[in-house]
Formats: sequence, structure tokens, C-alpha cells
Amino acid sequence: MAQRNDAMRDHAALIVHGPDQHGLVSAITSLISRNDGNIVTLDQYSDDPEGGTFFQRVLFHRDGLTAAMPDIEKDLADTLGPLKMSWTLTDQSVPKRMAVLASTSDHCLLELLWRHRRGQLPVTIPMVISNHTNVAEDVRSFGIPFVHVHSQGPDKSEAEQKILQLLTGNVDFVVLARYMQIISPDFLDKVGVPIINIHHSFLPAFIGAAPYRKAKERGVKLIGATSHYVTKDLDEGPIIEQDIARVNHAMTAADLQARGAYVERAVLSRAVQWHAEDRVIRHGNHTIVFD
Amino acid sequence: MAQRNDAMRDHAALIVHGPDQHGLVSAITSLISRNDGNIVTLDQYSDDPEGGTFFQRVLFHRDGLTAAMPDIEKDLADTLGPLKMSWTLTDQSVPKRMAVLASTSDHCLLELLWRHRRGQLPVTIPMVISNHTNVAEDVRSFGIPFVHVHSQGPDKSEAEQKILQLLTGNVDFVVLARYMQIISPDFLDKVGVPIINIHHSFLPAFIGAAPYRKAKERGVKLIGATSHYVTKDLDEGPIIEQDIARVNHAMTAADLQARGAYVERAVLSRAVQWHAEDRVIRHGNHTIVFD
Amino acid sequence: MAQRNDAMRDHAALIVHGPDQHGLVSAITSLISRNDGNIVTLDQYSDDPEGGTFFQRVLFHRDGLTAAMPDIEKDLADTLGPLKMSWTLTDQSVPKRMAVLASTSDHCLLELLWRHRRGQLPVTIPMVISNHTNVAEDVRSFGIPFVHVHSQGPDKSEAEQKILQLLTGNVDFVVLARYMQIISPDFLDKVGVPIINIHHSFLPAFIGAAPYRKAKERGVKLIGATSHYVTKDLDEGPIIEQDIARVNHAMTAADLQARGAYVERAVLSRAVQWHAEDRVIRHGNHTIVFD
Amino acid sequence: MAQRNDAMRDHAALIVHGPDQHGLVSAITSLISRNDGNIVTLDQYSDDPEGGTFFQRVLFHRDGLTAAMPDIEKDLADTLGPLKMSWTLTDQSVPKRMAVLASTSDHCLLELLWRHRRGQLPVTIPMVISNHTNVAEDVRSFGIPFVHVHSQGPDKSEAEQKILQLLTGNVDFVVLARYMQIISPDFLDKVGVPIINIHHSFLPAFIGAAPYRKAKERGVKLIGATSHYVTKDLDEGPIIEQDIARVNHAMTAADLQARGAYVERAVLSRAVQWHAEDRVIRHGNHTIVFD
Repeated sequence: MAQRNDAMRDHAALIVHGPDQHGLVSAITSLISRNDGNIVTLDQYSDDPEGGTFFQRVLFHRDGLTAAMPDIEKDLADTLGPLKMSWTLTDQSVPKRMAVLASTSDHCLLELLWRHRRGQLPVTIPMVISNHTNVAEDVRSFGIPFVHVHSQGPDKSEAEQKILQLLTGNVDFVVLARYMQIISPDFLDKVGVPIINIHHSFLPAFIGAAPYRKAKERGVKLIGATSHYVTKDLDEGPIIEQDIARVNHAMTAADLQARGAYVERAVLSRAVQWHAEDRVIRHGNHTIVFD
Repeated sequence: MAQRNDAMRDHAALIVHGPDQHGLVSAITSLISRNDGNIVTLDQYSDDPEGGTFFQRVLFHRDGLTAAMPDIEKDLADTLGPLKMSWTLTDQSVPKRMAVLASTSDHCLLELLWRHRRGQLPVTIPMVISNHTNVAEDVRSFGIPFVHVHSQGPDKSEAEQKILQLLTGNVDFVVLARYMQIISPDFLDKVGVPIINIHHSFLPAFIGAAPYRKAKERGVKLIGATSHYVTKDLDEGPIIEQDIARVNHAMTAADLQARGAYVERAVLSRAVQWHAEDRVIRHGNHTIVFD
Repeated sequence: MAQRNDAMRDHAALIVHGPDQHGLVSAITSLISRNDGNIVTLDQYSDDPEGGTFFQRVLFHRDGLTAAMPDIEKDLADTLGPLKMSWTLTDQSVPKRMAVLASTSDHCLLELLWRHRRGQLPVTIPMVISNHTNVAEDVRSFGIPFVHVHSQGPDKSEAEQKILQLLTGNVDFVVLARYMQIISPDFLDKVGVPIINIHHSFLPAFIGAAPYRKAKERGVKLIGATSHYVTKDLDEGPIIEQDIARVNHAMTAADLQARGAYVERAVLSRAVQWHAEDRVIRHGNHTIVFD
Repeated sequence: MAQRNDAMRDHAALIVHGPDQHGLVSAITSLISRNDGNIVTLDQYSDDPEGGTFFQRVLFHRDGLTAAMPDIEKDLADTLGPLKMSWTLTDQSVPKRMAVLASTSDHCLLELLWRHRRGQLPVTIPMVISNHTNVAEDVRSFGIPFVHVHSQGPDKSEAEQKILQLLTGNVDFVVLARYMQIISPDFLDKVGVPIINIHHSFLPAFIGAAPYRKAKERGVKLIGATSHYVTKDLDEGPIIEQDIARVNHAMTAADLQARGAYVERAVLSRAVQWHAEDRVIRHGNHTIVFD
């Protein structure tokens, strides 16, 4: 049986979104109440009180949650189906399975592994995959399997096939921890789970390659990092989190990169944690984050 | 008839707090629903899921709110009374009446007046009272009454009596915008409305007088400001908001003061806004802020 | 005789830049020493120790500075001329004359006027020019002349001519405090003094009009502001200062604008102060800021 | 022969401080010039232009620095001795030897080891000493010697003697990376090198034990961390660096601790880097930091 997060035993997160309408919060909280759930936190948002979309996250406690899940799910289907609302119910004691794809940089990767080991990321990490081998020893020192998938030359399809084979059925989401390979549309179609990326600029500034060099050329006084879901439009996916650091004229592009690395790892870690805790709802090209 | 905030017409904020118990959120949201309210935002927090205190703020829209208030209040009393919950229901289209007490410094005072004029502070300002006259012209240029209450010598009781007379029945809360007089316990007993202060340090560091001088002496690398409710224990009241600015060895105490002024006005403005929007709940010596 | 800044009496700022070479700092500091100057602060930077450009700012005190300026300037010409270095020497007790161009928004304008009144901006403000009249009363309440220059219709040349006439010979630099008119290349050619603008985004993100709307559409988690020198390439001039504020999904474009206004006024004020204190050196499309 | 930092080959840092007097900067830069040094950066500060103390850091490049050091030192002694100035000259290609003392927490320790491995901390780490063994494997995976020094019971003198024996002659400074043992005055007298500590609050707030618990009790909205030199007055030594993170009412003391850990590691790392690069000058109970 899979690993459990005891601190979240008998806790479920219910995400509901769909057309805003009168009485939704009451309907949902009544449902939780009649299923013997006790609300721990509730966040909701409507992007337009008149004809907009409604978003809600409820974390509730329910003794014997596992056994009760089917009944609650049936009640949700019966109650929310007629209202055209989408919903997901997740047992928060079951950690999501997260694969990490990395290249040669270790800062984002190690940060995730450290936070995970300290019990601050509610995930399991079934594997780290890299197109390089230099991080192998570090990864394995955390007791996490490391898989090297060779990826040279212009044709990445073989490497992608190998990665897909490793991921399929084994993970709930994928994190690109400064993974320096472009993900093909075909891979995105097939992978079937969300992919979270960290981009080393304050998007939409400095889209594309070499943002620190471009930042230096433009003479900016701040550098940033952006974590976003990967879509077929490169660097255009829904933003989950961003942050910045102050820089000055005396810093070289290499200095910006070194300083930026600290921003990247912090931004990616927050994005991963929020995703793992079901705090992020995708809507069009935006995210609603109930942090 | 008093000024109205049209953007918040037919919006009410309901604050509920008391012993946490099963089904509270559902009971409250059902109440709002059966009174034809539509929930705009809902925030809640419990300081301990087992036997702790529950706090909730619901902002809801209800056509014809003014006429419906008595019915909703009766329902609240009937529903929440047996559950030992405290509650307040406030029509958000009715701006709170805020008096400002100032001395010679203008930075916090002007910031409040500017934000108010831009429609960013949902209050009315029936008066600014100062023990000095240098800000009189500025205040009056905003169309706000200015009252000078002389306060020299060790005995402040006469000045306090005059101020109490001005405030009584005319204001919903008082802001001390760098008001350099100590408020007596007697004044606090009599004023009957909350008082918000801005202290020019990151409390509890540098409690008492001359915090910028003390900060310089201690060689700190950050200076701060703290907005809090005034209680009889000087500088010990519940903190509403805090922020800091970075400083360095080359700055004099006067430099710290100049830089600190920008932090003070921002921190005080946020605290005042949150209070005015019923986002702050006092609980013991803490605040719950649903910002 | 013009207004003087007594705190900076007998203080000069010397800016030197040009090809980096051995012994420059020593040559410059010896020159100051032999002219009886006492160095207060010294900042220097070289963008490449091998064949790069050298930048230095020295603030020094010299009793009887005004009388000694010609001798120091002759020594500078004799010493730095052969080294191909550019230099400027400015008496810091003589405040720069700053014109402000504004439109309807008051937040940047009032911030500059208020900091000036507090003695925190070492400038004089001979005039505020606006294509609207709503800020006239506020400006005049600070004792500053306000001039309305009507500017409607597509042809701005007449308005620009009037503004040029007002500025010529009367100001040392111009600040666009949310001035919503495009400056023509012809105006830039003729004005003959630096122009500082505040752009309401973190450039180069959201170049052009309506950045807050674009930021909302892109779903960013931070908004920013950028102060830069105006060049013929719109929004592409050398950046002086930038800063950001955190936002979230629940904020409307109007909320972003309101929050952004506080970032704008802080960023612009810092840029103006640094420019006024001769702390900013333009080099290509960059700035070196010795703050 | 010891490890060298090639990037800083032939670079020296000269620190000068003492009574401010006319012509100091010129005297020092001329000295560097006549010894064939080329100034890379120069920072200086005087705490009072009239009768204050002068502080300067010059980083200069000099071909064949190692061979020239004795001559430069003699010139410094001859030039600065009569002026009553203190000075130190350090070859920046020689990394300082840093011992780390740790207990069970790994976040500050791992951050230092990892930054060191990335080449971002110009030090060597001859040893990590802990009174616990749980971090041993991690430390050794970085190729750094780990020494366990048992320290139970009230009498720490035996443990301190063992640590002194390990340190003596082997290190240039010591870092307490969340080392949970009180350092005795006797140890301080004997150790003979600077000790840098990280305190988990914004000093002087929450001096002493359990600052996160105290922060929770006081209801603060920010938590901080402070890195300082250790003196006999606990938590009262000269502050090198501080920073904060925003918190809210919903966070438990454990949440504050988890969030604070990221502030601690960042603050300590910056303080260590600045110390290692000779950017920090102690003066009374303050520091001048030329960052």
C-alpha cells in the first residue's frame, strides 16, 4: 500500500468550478455537512458576480474518509451535476506522485528534494529523469531513483518515448526543474498529466532563450522567475507563481544568473507545493491560486 | 442622509466568531441563502479544529439590503445565539466615520486624505484634530474640517475632554496618524470606539520612544512600522499590519526616519482600509485579518 | 539670486567616465586633494577591467567652493583631457530646476510636490504643466506655478511648441508624471534637457498602452513600474529604477491600477532623486546608478 | 599548497579604518597606484565628516601580487602608521578557512555546503562539527570532514575543549549554523577567530529562546532572521544582515519556523559571503558592510 501523509489523514480537498449561480456556497457546504465533514478552510472566488465563473476550494475533515469517499462522490455528482459544475475530490493524505525532469543545473532539483525530505512537500518522488548524469549521485543520496535518458542530436522523439514510458501510470504530475529540452506537442498530448515549468525571467519579459543575457542588455533593475503550466505555446502557459530579486549595473550576466537561481528555486517550490495541495485551478490561460 | 458608497450598494459583511463546532459554515451560508443573499467572498479560520475559536467573514450581495437587514438580523440572532456565536452585520455601502488625530508630521495624515479623495478608503472623515496648527491648511484644502485642540503642559485631561466631546457620537473609529500625545486610560474607557495607531518600529523591537535612534544605535539592517489597536498597555495592542524597509550603515537616524515615513504611511493605510472594510477581527491580543 | 540647498553648501559632485586605464582613481582623488577638497563619498565602476569604460562619482566638500570652481574645472580639463575622460562638476548646493508634465492622474505629481516640500527632493520646481486642469488647485496649494496647455486633436505640434517655449532656459530636466501624451521626436530634439518618464509596467513586459489590462489578461502574479529616460524609441530608453507589487487572481484591472499607482510614485520619486543628486550616469542604453 | 581561487588571482582587498582626516582617499589610492595596483572597486564611509571614523575597502588587481605583498605592506605601514589608521591587506585568491558548527537542523548547513560547491562562497571548509550525528552523511557527501563532538549534560567545558582543539590553527572563522549550544565566554576568549551566528528572529525583537513561539504569541505579521558576530552578550553582537518574510494569523508556530528557515539560510549565507570577501568591518557594536 502506498505511503500516506498522516498529518492529512481524513482530510479531503474539494475543488468546484463552473457557472456562478445563487446559493452555490450554501449547497456545497450543506453537502459537506450532511456527509459529516467538518470544514477546515474554505476559499472561493467569482470572476464576475453576474454570469461569471465560480471557483471554490474546501478542505474538510471527515472521520473514516476513505470508506466514505464513494458516498460523498455520489452526492457531489447528484448535487453539482444539474448545476453544470465541475468538481474534483481528493484525499489529502494520499501524496501526489511527482516526477522531476532535470538537466545539469542542480539548484531547483535539490531544493525540491530537500523540501521533500523535510516533509514540506506533500508528494512522493518516484523518479528523477535527466539527460545528463552529473546529478545522479545527489539524487540517489536522497533515496530517490535516478534515470538517465540520453538525448543528443536534433531528434528528441526517441528520448521522449523513453520518458513517456517511464512516466505512464506512475506519476500524477511532472516538474521541469531547469530541464533544458523543448517538450514536443506530441509529448504533451501523450503524457496525460500536468507539467510545471520554471522559466528564468519575469514573464512575459524576456520570453525565450537566454533571459539573463537579455536582462543584462536591457539594463533592468530587477530579475525574476516564473513558474507556469506547460502548454503547446512555449512560455505562454498559465502562470502559477512569480517573484523577483533586485540587481544593479555592476552585476554581470553570470551574477544575474547566480542570483536568479535563488529566485527560481523559491518560485518553483511554491508552485509545486500549491499544485500538490490542490490549491491551483486552471481556467483558460490563468490560474486561481488559493494559497 | 449620509453619504453612500455606491460600489458597495446592497453588500453586507457578516463577521461571525465563537466556539468552533460542526456545521457552522453550512449553517451560516444556508442562512444567507435563505435570506436571498449571494455570497461574494467568504473567508474563515479556526485557531484549533478541536475546541478552538472559529472566525468567518462573508461578504454577500442582497437586493434591497437596507429593508431586509432587520429580518436577516433576527435570523442571525435566532440561528447563532443558541450556538454561542458573536456576530456583526454591516451594510458596506455605509462608510465608517473616521476621525484622524495628528500632530506636526503630515506624511500619514496626507496619505489617508489622498487615498480617501481617490475613493480608495471607504470612510468619511468628519474631522481631523491636531494639537498643532501646521497641517490645518492642507486638511482644509481637502474639504475636511480641521480642529485645533491645544495641549501643552503635563496635564492632558482638559485637551482629552475636548477631543472626547468632539468625537462622541460622531465617529466609528479613530486613527492616530503620528499623534505624539499619550492616550490616557481614562480616554480609552470613554471613547467607546476602536483607535488605530501607527508605531514607527517593527514591534516588539524598539518599544517606546525614539525607535529610529535606537535602531541606529543597534545597527539594524531593516527598519519597520507597525499599525495596531490602542490598548492601555502602550505599544502592546493587537497588531494589524507591519512592514519594513532596508537600511544600511551609512544612513543617519534622520535618514532612517525619512525612509521609515514611507513605510509608516503604507502600513497605516492598509490597516485603516482593512478595518474600514470589516476585515479585521480582534481576538485576545491578536488580529485575524481577512485581506 | 537662486535658492540654495544649505545642507549641501560647499559640496560638489564630480562625475567622470571614459576609457578605463591604470591609476585613474588615484589621479582623480589626488586632484581633489590638491584642490583642498575632502572626499565625502566615492563610488566607481568599470564595465570591463580590460578595455572597458570607467565610471566614477565623487562627492567632496571644499570650503569656498563657488570661488574655487573655475580653478578646479581648469585642473580637471588639464588632467582628464589627455586621458580622454568626460567629466561634469556640479555644485550640489544649487538645486536642479525640474518641470513636471502631468495629465489627470495626481498620484505621481503629488508625491513629487510633497517630497519636495518636505525637503527630500533637492530641486526647485519652476512649473507644472498639464493638458488638463483638474490638478491645478493642488499644485498651486504647494506654491508652485501651474500652466494649462490645451492639447486636443491629433496634431500636438502647437501644444508642444508652447511647452518648449515655457521650458527653454528655465529647467534642467523634465519629469513626465503620468503624462498621457506621446512626445514627438522633434520635441526631444529641441528640448535639450533630460526627460524622465514613469511607465506603469515592469519593462520590457507590457510595452505600450494599457499595461494593467494586459497584465490582468496574462494572469501575472506581480505588477511593476519602470522609470526611464525618454528616447525616440518609445518605452525603450535607459532604465533608472524599477519595482513591483504582488497581486493575485482576484484583483481586477482597476485593482491592479490602484495598487500599481503606489509602485509608480515610489519608483519615479527614487529615479528623480537620484537624477537630481547626479547619481545616474547614462551609458548607451543603460544607466549606472550610484545610489 | 593550499587551494586557490583563480577568479581572484592577483586581487587584494585593503581595509583601512581610523580617524577621518583630510586627503585619506588620495593617500591610499596613490599608494596603490605607486605599487602598480589597479583599483577594481572602492567603497568608503565616514560616520562623521568632523572628527569621525573613516572606513574604506579597496579591491585592487596587481600582477604578481604574492611576491609584491611585503613591499605593499611596508608601504602601508609607513604611510598609514603616522596617520593612526588600522589596516589589513588580504590576498583574495586565498580562501578563508571556515568551520561550521551545527546541531540537528540541516537547512543552514546544507545551504552553506551547497553554495560552496557551486563556487559561490569563497571559502574552504576544513570541517563541520556537530553535537549530533544526523547530518554526518549529508556533510560527507559534499566531501567535507564531519566530526561529532558529544555534548550532553550541563557541563559543556569538555566538549568546548575538544572543539577548540579541532579549530586551533585550522580555521579563520567559525559559523554557527543553528548550533543549539550556548558558547561560553571562556570559549570566546580562546577561539581567537570571529564567530558568525544566525538568530531566528528580527533582533532585537524576540531575544533569547523560542522566538517563533513568541512571534506567534505576539501576533506579528512578519518574521525575521538576523546574522551577527558572537560576543559575550548573548544576541547582542554586531548585526551583519537581516531579512524578513510575511506571515499571517493562520500560521502555527511550526509554520512560522518552516517559513523562517528559508529566511535564516539566506541571511546567514549573505553574511558569510560578505565576511569571507572582507566586506564587513566591525566598529563598536556595529558593522559597516560594503556589499
